[in-house]
Amino acid sequence: MFQRILVANRGEIALRIIRACREMGIQTVAVFSEADRNADYIRLADEAYCIGPAQSANSYLLINRIISAAEVGNVQAIHPGYGFLSENEHFAEVCRSCNIEFIGPPHEAMAKLGDKVTAKEIAKSAKVNLVPGSDGLITDEETAIGIANKIGYPVLIKATAGGGGKGMRVARNDITLKAGLKQAALEAEKAFNNAGVYLEKYIENPRHVEVQILADQHGEVLHLWERDCSTQRRHQKMIEESPAPNLPNNVREELCKAAVRLVKTAGYTNAGTCEFIVDKDNNFYFIEVNARIQVEHPVTEQVTGIDLIRQQIRVAANEPLGIKQKQVPCNGHAIEVRINAEDPDNDFRGSPGKITKLRIPGGLGVRWDSHVHEGYVIPPYYDSMIGKLIVHKPTRLEAIACMKRCLDELVLEGVKTTIPLLKRIFNHSAFVEGKMYTTFVEQELVGR
Amino acid sequence: MFQRILVANRGEIALRIIRACREMGIQTVAVFSEADRNADYIRLADEAYCIGPAQSANSYLLINRIISAAEVGNVQAIHPGYGFLSENEHFAEVCRSCNIEFIGPPHEAMAKLGDKVTAKEIAKSAKVNLVPGSDGLITDEETAIGIANKIGYPVLIKATAGGGGKGMRVARNDITLKAGLKQAALEAEKAFNNAGVYLEKYIENPRHVEVQILADQHGEVLHLWERDCSTQRRHQKMIEESPAPNLPNNVREELCKAAVRLVKTAGYTNAGTCEFIVDKDNNFYFIEVNARIQVEHPVTEQVTGIDLIRQQIRVAANEPLGIKQKQVPCNGHAIEVRINAEDPDNDFRGSPGKITKLRIPGGLGVRWDSHVHEGYVIPPYYDSMIGKLIVHKPTRLEAIACMKRCLDELVLEGVKTTIPLLKRIFNHSAFVEGKMYTTFVEQELVGR
Repeated sequence: MFQRILVANRGEIALRIIRACREMGIQTVAVFSEADRNADYIRLADEAYCIGPAQSANSYLLINRIISAAEVGNVQAIHPGYGFLSENEHFAEVCRSCNIEFIGPPHEAMAKLGDKVTAKEIAKSAKVNLVPGSDGLITDEETAIGIANKIGYPVLIKATAGGGGKGMRVARNDITLKAGLKQAALEAEKAFNNAGVYLEKYIENPRHVEVQILADQHGEVLHLWERDCSTQRRHQKMIEESPAPNLPNNVREELCKAAVRLVKTAGYTNAGTCEFIVDKDNNFYFIEVNARIQVEHPVTEQVTGIDLIRQQIRVAANEPLGIKQKQVPCNGHAIEVRINAEDPDNDFRGSPGKITKLRIPGGLGVRWDSHVHEGYVIPPYYDSMIGKLIVHKPTRLEAIACMKRCLDELVLEGVKTTIPLLKRIFNHSAFVEGKMYTTFVEQELVGR
Repeated sequence: MFQRILVANRGEIALRIIRACREMGIQTVAVFSEADRNADYIRLADEAYCIGPAQSANSYLLINRIISAAEVGNVQAIHPGYGFLSENEHFAEVCRSCNIEFIGPPHEAMAKLGDKVTAKEIAKSAKVNLVPGSDGLITDEETAIGIANKIGYPVLIKATAGGGGKGMRVARNDITLKAGLKQAALEAEKAFNNAGVYLEKYIENPRHVEVQILADQHGEVLHLWERDCSTQRRHQKMIEESPAPNLPNNVREELCKAAVRLVKTAGYTNAGTCEFIVDKDNNFYFIEVNARIQVEHPVTEQVTGIDLIRQQIRVAANEPLGIKQKQVPCNGHAIEVRINAEDPDNDFRGSPGKITKLRIPGGLGVRWDSHVHEGYVIPPYYDSMIGKLIVHKPTRLEAIACMKRCLDELVLEGVKTTIPLLKRIFNHSAFVEGKMYTTFVEQELVGR
């Protein structure tokens, strides 16, 4: 086992990793930008190095600075957390070329799954459903119309270089398809300097369901059941839970098995997540693999009793998982909310500043994962997520009741937060009945 | 089910009960003394009444004030918590005579178990072992010597009116017994105006193990396994855990069955605890029943997944438990530490005052039960226990590692606390190996 690990991240996930290491008897080296110099969690690391100014491009994203800190700190491994360099296969490769273990998947598997085209090929050869669509780029209108009629309207026109909804159009018949192709190509050309577009079946009001995977270097690949992350705002997850509500057992089993097949085919090890969208008839389609630990990993830890960060470290140290699939329980129901410092009256823009008052909820079935405290100053440079509140109860309705009382107990003053919106979601019938879909918050609660 | 409950307590247990009620959709009425007027948990109750000045004799212990608040607040039930009026059978009787449900056992069972003589009779008729000793008071030296030789030295001479160690002597042979009888009688006469003494076998370095009981009004009596509370200081529990380490399975089963027999014999319902001492050969002897929820109930909740406060309320509302003994699991290992505001350099005297800085630990397997926050002023009038930190992990060693990192994370400044002593205990081999006994902290760590 490693004696010393560098934590190449900040905030709550840095604290999460430091906690796991302390419990395993592993020393930690923290790195921090000038903006995080006084962060309280730094004191829990055994050593800490400043790696640059506040802007992450000049600190948390600088591979050479992190490698230098790892060498000065004399670590055997680096945990990248999520975000920043966590899915950068070049970083993983550099670590290994420096004889430092990267706590994550092999960089070859990262590269294959990080590329949309090869990821789809892997899914196909693993017999995992993809959203039906054009095999490649659309060359002409007539072909597009043929494909659209074959997969059935509505269809989605997407830019191959796209992201963030740009160059994206929904078409519901041949006429809007023709118009949409032109508009999307123009928009994509303008935004990405690449006019290439392709077609996909448009799934109306889909759910986002993902499967947690854990695979060791000895051939054991486990799923740790699924998470429903349908409660989103502008494609950003707000609430995650496990198990997914209203998902028939046979679908759930199939989904989890598909995820296992997929990562096995990719030669993937360590922790990862297969993301799917699920339509109203419970058909599921593979979207992508997140080749890292995810923000929402705690709900899986609660229902399975498995410490994912600990297992990531063990797998990276070449230890066998020592668990069989049948030994992975799914007990009760866990829900996580992300507490974001955002201003709902100002288009949810980040709301940095000093937390002047903080009351943290507690008690039976309540977990709080956050690095913030009363007096903490949220820097303006990073993600607005400042903490996660997780509840775990025997049933989903009990978990909802517990979360509601926790949100009432939680006081966080000095900055604007998403807490009031979260409270409204927990009182919304679509959520309470487990009938969420990825756009219901925007459609029913905040507007697009 | 009740619509409204009055919480006849303060501090962390009042908050614990309010939390359970909120999750059950039950409104709460809080009562508070003038010293607790500004306590933060009061805001979480639906209504709150001041019932008198700071001194508990004039507020939390005044039955008529609490009954008045209950009537003004229009509640159907009162939860007494622990301490204060929780084991006062007269209070339970008054509640019921006012048509207010007392959330606890029947007052008849409380009365029987509250009296040492009838409690022993109940234990005997339930075939539960008592510490061997004289059947009644010692009348003369020769009889005492006969009894001592029959039960075997060492023996303990105890004052019948005693408490707090006064009038108590250990005798290891006939000579020290004769001298001890005289001294103990004199001391008892002086302290309690009652010279009566009796003999008990002296158990050297005993463990304190107790069994959590839950019984409904429909005849179901369950044990929720045992807790080890051997880590004490001057008979005050400091650390509690479940399951008890190093307790052979057959002993554990016998202990739990004995507790069930005993409370069945007493006609007991609701939550309660049978306390035993266990000698080095794992013989166990009944001490007493605590006819209320206990401070250390969270460790049992963690390993069984059963919410004890919720079940107390359900039982009082005449609902059946709906659980069978075989459905009560004991998963993993849970440990609780009590955080006391006490000054170890000043004979552990209470250290009231303002908490100037507070950092609460969190993360996987960590529970925090406390009403305090940064800026909270600990009043000098009540118990010095200000919070409970509970960890729950797959194994005892993992739980210990987790508690150590939590104690390192926990910062509580402005008052003196037992945190440094707790840290020392978690590094002590007797504790780590599960070889605690009720006096090991005083013998090995702090002096008597």
